[in-house]
Amino acid sequence: VDEHLTRTWFDTLFTTDAMRRVFADRTRLQAILDFEAALAKSLAMVGIAPARAAETIASQCRAELFDLSSLSKASRVTGNSAIPVIHELESLVAQQSEEAARYVHFGATSQDAMDTGLVLQIRDALDVMTWDLEYLSIALEGLANKHKHTPMVGRTWLQQAVPMTFGLKVVGWLSAVARHQERIGQIRAENLVLQLGGAAGTLAAFGEQHETVVALVGQELHLGSPRLPWHTHRDRLAEVATTLGLLTGTLGKIARDVSLLSQAEIAEVAEPNVPGRGGSSSMPQKQNPVGCAVALAAATRVPPLVSTMLAAMPQEHERGLGGWQAEWETLPEIFELSAGALAQVRQIIAGLTVNVDQMRKNIDAGDGLLYAEAVAAALALKVGRTAAHSLVGRACRRTIEEGRNLRELLVDNPEVVSALSITEINELFELDRHTSAAAQLVEKALSRWHFQAESELPTDG
Amino acid sequence: VDEHLTRTWFDTLFTTDAMRRVFADRTRLQAILDFEAALAKSLAMVGIAPARAAETIASQCRAELFDLSSLSKASRVTGNSAIPVIHELESLVAQQSEEAARYVHFGATSQDAMDTGLVLQIRDALDVMTWDLEYLSIALEGLANKHKHTPMVGRTWLQQAVPMTFGLKVVGWLSAVARHQERIGQIRAENLVLQLGGAAGTLAAFGEQHETVVALVGQELHLGSPRLPWHTHRDRLAEVATTLGLLTGTLGKIARDVSLLSQAEIAEVAEPNVPGRGGSSSMPQKQNPVGCAVALAAATRVPPLVSTMLAAMPQEHERGLGGWQAEWETLPEIFELSAGALAQVRQIIAGLTVNVDQMRKNIDAGDGLLYAEAVAAALALKVGRTAAHSLVGRACRRTIEEGRNLRELLVDNPEVVSALSITEINELFELDRHTSAAAQLVEKALSRWHFQAESELPTDG
Amino acid sequence: VDEHLTRTWFDTLFTTDAMRRVFADRTRLQAILDFEAALAKSLAMVGIAPARAAETIASQCRAELFDLSSLSKASRVTGNSAIPVIHELESLVAQQSEEAARYVHFGATSQDAMDTGLVLQIRDALDVMTWDLEYLSIALEGLANKHKHTPMVGRTWLQQAVPMTFGLKVVGWLSAVARHQERIGQIRAENLVLQLGGAAGTLAAFGEQHETVVALVGQELHLGSPRLPWHTHRDRLAEVATTLGLLTGTLGKIARDVSLLSQAEIAEVAEPNVPGRGGSSSMPQKQNPVGCAVALAAATRVPPLVSTMLAAMPQEHERGLGGWQAEWETLPEIFELSAGALAQVRQIIAGLTVNVDQMRKNIDAGDGLLYAEAVAAALALKVGRTAAHSLVGRACRRTIEEGRNLRELLVDNPEVVSALSITEINELFELDRHTSAAAQLVEKALSRWHFQAESELPTDG
Amino acid sequence: VDEHLTRTWFDTLFTTDAMRRVFADRTRLQAILDFEAALAKSLAMVGIAPARAAETIASQCRAELFDLSSLSKASRVTGNSAIPVIHELESLVAQQSEEAARYVHFGATSQDAMDTGLVLQIRDALDVMTWDLEYLSIALEGLANKHKHTPMVGRTWLQQAVPMTFGLKVVGWLSAVARHQERIGQIRAENLVLQLGGAAGTLAAFGEQHETVVALVGQELHLGSPRLPWHTHRDRLAEVATTLGLLTGTLGKIARDVSLLSQAEIAEVAEPNVPGRGGSSSMPQKQNPVGCAVALAAATRVPPLVSTMLAAMPQEHERGLGGWQAEWETLPEIFELSAGALAQVRQIIAGLTVNVDQMRKNIDAGDGLLYAEAVAAALALKVGRTAAHSLVGRACRRTIEEGRNLRELLVDNPEVVSALSITEINELFELDRHTSAAAQLVEKALSRWHFQAESELPTDG
Repeated sequence: VDEHLTRTWFDTLFTTDAMRRVFADRTRLQAILDFEAALAKSLAMVGIAPARAAETIASQCRAELFDLSSLSKASRVTGNSAIPVIHELESLVAQQSEEAARYVHFGATSQDAMDTGLVLQIRDALDVMTWDLEYLSIALEGLANKHKHTPMVGRTWLQQAVPMTFGLKVVGWLSAVARHQERIGQIRAENLVLQLGGAAGTLAAFGEQHETVVALVGQELHLGSPRLPWHTHRDRLAEVATTLGLLTGTLGKIARDVSLLSQAEIAEVAEPNVPGRGGSSSMPQKQNPVGCAVALAAATRVPPLVSTMLAAMPQEHERGLGGWQAEWETLPEIFELSAGALAQVRQIIAGLTVNVDQMRKNIDAGDGLLYAEAVAAALALKVGRTAAHSLVGRACRRTIEEGRNLRELLVDNPEVVSALSITEINELFELDRHTSAAAQLVEKALSRWHFQAESELPTDG
Repeated sequence: VDEHLTRTWFDTLFTTDAMRRVFADRTRLQAILDFEAALAKSLAMVGIAPARAAETIASQCRAELFDLSSLSKASRVTGNSAIPVIHELESLVAQQSEEAARYVHFGATSQDAMDTGLVLQIRDALDVMTWDLEYLSIALEGLANKHKHTPMVGRTWLQQAVPMTFGLKVVGWLSAVARHQERIGQIRAENLVLQLGGAAGTLAAFGEQHETVVALVGQELHLGSPRLPWHTHRDRLAEVATTLGLLTGTLGKIARDVSLLSQAEIAEVAEPNVPGRGGSSSMPQKQNPVGCAVALAAATRVPPLVSTMLAAMPQEHERGLGGWQAEWETLPEIFELSAGALAQVRQIIAGLTVNVDQMRKNIDAGDGLLYAEAVAAALALKVGRTAAHSLVGRACRRTIEEGRNLRELLVDNPEVVSALSITEINELFELDRHTSAAAQLVEKALSRWHFQAESELPTDG
Repeated sequence: VDEHLTRTWFDTLFTTDAMRRVFADRTRLQAILDFEAALAKSLAMVGIAPARAAETIASQCRAELFDLSSLSKASRVTGNSAIPVIHELESLVAQQSEEAARYVHFGATSQDAMDTGLVLQIRDALDVMTWDLEYLSIALEGLANKHKHTPMVGRTWLQQAVPMTFGLKVVGWLSAVARHQERIGQIRAENLVLQLGGAAGTLAAFGEQHETVVALVGQELHLGSPRLPWHTHRDRLAEVATTLGLLTGTLGKIARDVSLLSQAEIAEVAEPNVPGRGGSSSMPQKQNPVGCAVALAAATRVPPLVSTMLAAMPQEHERGLGGWQAEWETLPEIFELSAGALAQVRQIIAGLTVNVDQMRKNIDAGDGLLYAEAVAAALALKVGRTAAHSLVGRACRRTIEEGRNLRELLVDNPEVVSALSITEINELFELDRHTSAAAQLVEKALSRWHFQAESELPTDG
Repeated sequence: VDEHLTRTWFDTLFTTDAMRRVFADRTRLQAILDFEAALAKSLAMVGIAPARAAETIASQCRAELFDLSSLSKASRVTGNSAIPVIHELESLVAQQSEEAARYVHFGATSQDAMDTGLVLQIRDALDVMTWDLEYLSIALEGLANKHKHTPMVGRTWLQQAVPMTFGLKVVGWLSAVARHQERIGQIRAENLVLQLGGAAGTLAAFGEQHETVVALVGQELHLGSPRLPWHTHRDRLAEVATTLGLLTGTLGKIARDVSLLSQAEIAEVAEPNVPGRGGSSSMPQKQNPVGCAVALAAATRVPPLVSTMLAAMPQEHERGLGGWQAEWETLPEIFELSAGALAQVRQIIAGLTVNVDQMRKNIDAGDGLLYAEAVAAALALKVGRTAAHSLVGRACRRTIEEGRNLRELLVDNPEVVSALSITEINELFELDRHTSAAAQLVEKALSRWHFQAESELPTDG
């Protein structure tokens, strides 16, 4: 790899080494070779190829026998990545046995090898995601459980709204993550299917045995065998992209919340404190939320990449021109960015600094405005919604302008006091009253993940 | 509606009236009111509101009592569409009963009404899609069945490749459409859930009865009751968008194929001939593939709209600022464009003109080049893949340059004849040999939709 | 317009009536008719059509003579909007004069009428944008000037960084807005060109006079005459979209800043207080930043729409299939969203509530951490960058943990005091020292807009 | 660079080595160092730093002294790429002189170095594009000139329309390319400006000399000096992206046309014949239009990447969180894809195989339908537009159904012959009559590029 031509600096930041490995050129090469080996083996099983030929072919299907750099250059000429691999494989096999070489890639087309190879990579990539999601989910469960009673300000439209609990926020994150786990589980179960159709998807070269060959290759690679070749029907691949797009949206949402709560003036949470992390080249006091930045960058970049996968779907006839090619680098990028965001968010959640005191301070700093909704609701039952809303609204504006506590203003207001007793008013300003339903929501929601509560946090190795 | 401000000219082209009706302002209004009626009824069932109040509220929850134009203007001030509706509803109810008016919207927040209303609209929209997909699927099945043995040119990279059958192409379309039917079925089963959380999702106003209220409102509206309020967790809605995005990609693929096959120089299929349709203002001979244009335009426009839904996901805290609002017009547009494309494609398929003779002519016009792959494969087993490829490749170039039929050139070539007998060569150029596997693929694939084969084409009313 | 099919509720929120009017169906119809009238007039001038025919045609080119609803329905059949207009126009003209009717649309194709009509609409739309941008620019200038010395916290990565002035922030907004004004001015000057080519852009029908006809029609409509017809070269239109995309990005940036500074815990600015605006259906105390939400929603929605315009560019041959059609609703939407965001931002800026005291409080609440960069820089010149960074960094962490002011901690630190005198340290913590360069930057930047300073804020009528 | 983690296989296909070099990590590192050297030099010129310190710093600003792999790893911790470079630079300088090390990066912030470095890379990248565009433009001019009289079928909506010339198509491509050349020239002149602001853009560290320092650094790097720091105003960078997006759209349009005209059934042009290029792993006869596929893939991928750049614009306060980071890999990708598409298209155009005979055959194969528009126009002047359209339309349908030539059918039609003489009809079917205006258009358009006609095709080295 020529360093003067390579651009990978930011890969360490935006993705993980595990995911880079899955989509590295070398892995891709091996995946193509795995397809060729499985095809040869299946041809032998149905008697199209001699068993010894299949063995010889399989013996050469090892990435370390190939020179990636020359394959890469050859791709510029051939326009795809499988053709040079097949040429080289055939040449390697021929050095062992001229006869065996005749059965290399027999009956297949280059897209068969490329697509199947990609599906094998996707399977590994989903493994990585699944593990990290499980980790994140367990960390979130612990956090939600710990803070189910921790009161904090609920915020809407970037404004303070009503009291809630931090656990409710976290269990909301968890609930979304759990849905993504299900989606990814389903993709794994249904979308990982073999591609094998030959030149235009007719399977003509295998004659009467075409169905058996397809079944055997699928079995060999532990992939589903599709009803039909799907060279220009990319919905399963595009669905992998949309599923990751949905996940990344949720990761971005968690990162958005964490970064907003980390603002100096709010200071309710902070990313885990790691030496050197998030520093500034000019400001010694800075602890920048670097993990959130990575997740938010992914949440900005992935949606347009998903739209590329969807826009590439209307592919021409039996093999596309432009659309297929547009997928080649796009799907790996989506995986890399999603995995990077996921890794950052799981680290953030696993080590999140939670400032319970500050959460309480921010509630109290509101001069009672956070309880306005409750008072208005209670008043509404006595004097009607509009009247109540307007009465409390006026008091709120005085609180904001004069800095007087809302409760005091209400207690002093004859209209209010004629509808609600002072005891009732005081009760409305009791924090517990507002957070108990939230705490119950958290508890009930968590109980549905009960089985998980018993599992332990997986260790990193 | 002021005609000087309205832009709907192209709606007749790009979508269907059925889908416009689902997302019309009036329907939206009624959906919000349905939520309010269900909420009132549920409040009465748990004893929070008097039964009579609930009845009075429900009696006013009829869209025809409201003035859309003034609601619309009020939305500019309030920044959302539910607040003016609630104000107006309360005022209507108050005219009937001051007491009843106190229970309007009790315990809910405007996003509860807007989101639930939207979910109700989505349910109706998915009904429309489901029906049209069923129709398309049946039409495709008939077409595939009819043409399972019809030979045509298979094309890759926009070039002629090998012979296949038209039925194989159609069953490929059908197979993708069937997967989208499953996806949409799943969305219907899992993603249509009630939104109800109150100001910041704490359900505080309902006290101990919060779980019951949620269950009752869900039951009343025939919607699932979510584990938790989901004000800023938009993955279920975004998944509706991605699912439609996947579908539109396939519709675009069908339209791409049909439009390419309709080119004068290929002329294998044509859109149904409808008087006046696809004409030109200057060229009397034109029959423009208007339906394909609509589907391809949708396949261009929907992917970026899907990316908007994904990009809008990282919403702040307990209610978003910017992201939530970005969804409001985007999801309806996605539905309208998908529905428009679907309607066009089902009409195209249901009445497609198929020119079987021309399909055959295009095969024969290739001077035997379409059989090059088969010859190369057969030769490869004798002389090796590279040698065979190069031998046949040279003959192909002569065919292209000199116009001589490939079979003749091969028969005249001593190298070829020493490896394959003339009978073998002649057999390789028999069309049936190439299309029989394709025909079998079609038959087997169709047999899996057997249960559908018995159903009849639904009638339009 | 059928209310049961119409969806325009949110248009009042997301765009302006002025922009809706420009892209209303009625305006579009008139723009197409303006093209036809200009064409007829030009044909008469070169002698192809009789002068009286041109007059008769022009007399019927009035939108009020047409029925939009039936035109709209006809578009579903024809697949474009011009053909039904031309048919109807011809029929109206024929009622006046059979002879005149023969010259309707002579030599043109429907795309000529549609594209030219669109360009006329774009010209009007850019007028609207230009006016609003001028207004915003003047409002920003006034705000920057007023607050050039107002100290506030500069924030990076959502964390407090160093002191700056509010005027510097505002002049940054202004500077970007001014660049967009230039871009839009340039688009107006260069991209508003006539479309006229006939069926496939050959201008064949006009014979030797083709160049003159093009020049005359352009002149008549005050549009540039292009070198060549541009039916499938959409770069000028797409550039209109990208230019609006760039503008909307800046509007989103301003809205982001305002909304973040409006958070209760920061409270440095607030959207103008308009009765009823930004209220909540449940919380009487809320003043939601509705204008920011609209601008941020636009900044989320416009980029994908711009990508639609770019993705639609590779149009086939002499008239596109799918790509062209994808533009029809997309460009108007981009204009409407940009105009809506612009209108909101100019209202926000024109009436922005600026809380100078709170800006100062937020500086002081930082316990001196905002000055850490200055101290580190000064120390660096004595002890080296890394040592200084680490020395000050340790003190910062103590400030954060113990709440002690950074200045005090530094003064107590022998290592620091051995490098910097206490006077020097105290000077580094003087606010003016940090904001004076900022104030100068503002002044110099504003002086370049000097000519504008003399203009008055335009009145709304 | 670890091969097990690297994914660059397709870079050889989708971009050029020249562009990879510009955005390689090593180039990026050097660009950051160039900024630091220029800053040090300027600090010395205004007397902030000793001259010797600046020299020492500059002496260490050489990429070969740094270890990219460790810088890359450090970026994961720091969250940006400049901080590790600055640390390492300081340490290298300190080895030479403790004193000099104190002035490394003085007064700047890491974004200053990153942004300015990026601008330097963009300048080099635009050089590459400019050269290739010049080459393409000259090749197009030659092709247009050669084929200005070559008749071919004009096609609209993927259907045959009217006769035109191939030169007219090519000059249309050229005209669009020329507009992109102007756009890129303008970007080069106006958007390449220095970034220098310090921690929050206040330039505070330079005291009274801030304006001079900015001017000097700009001068040193031959970059414009901006009015103000632009850390969170990204419109200039985003405009680079939109400009490339527009260009790529046109490149996609050229590729679309070439690929459609290359279909076997049309066969009017073909990509240059390069041995091994565009072959198939299974079909020896294939010459896939690989260059078109690359350009079309770029035209699919670039628009969503442009939308990422626009969506990233609303960056927070004085330095963004998420948006800024989203740009880092996106802009280089846009450059690489645009450059790759441009390189392919210029190769295609420079060596395009044009089959003039086939162009003529395709005209003649239309049985006269291509002349329908001309006949209808001529008839319209006698019998009115609608009557003429309908009369000719009926004849066209007979031509299509019966295969009889349109001219013959018209001559046999009494209604037609009563309006047009047989001589007139025959004239309307003369090809020259239709292509002469097209040829004139080409000539006139080319004459405006006269100055270029004298230049020679640049040589590749």
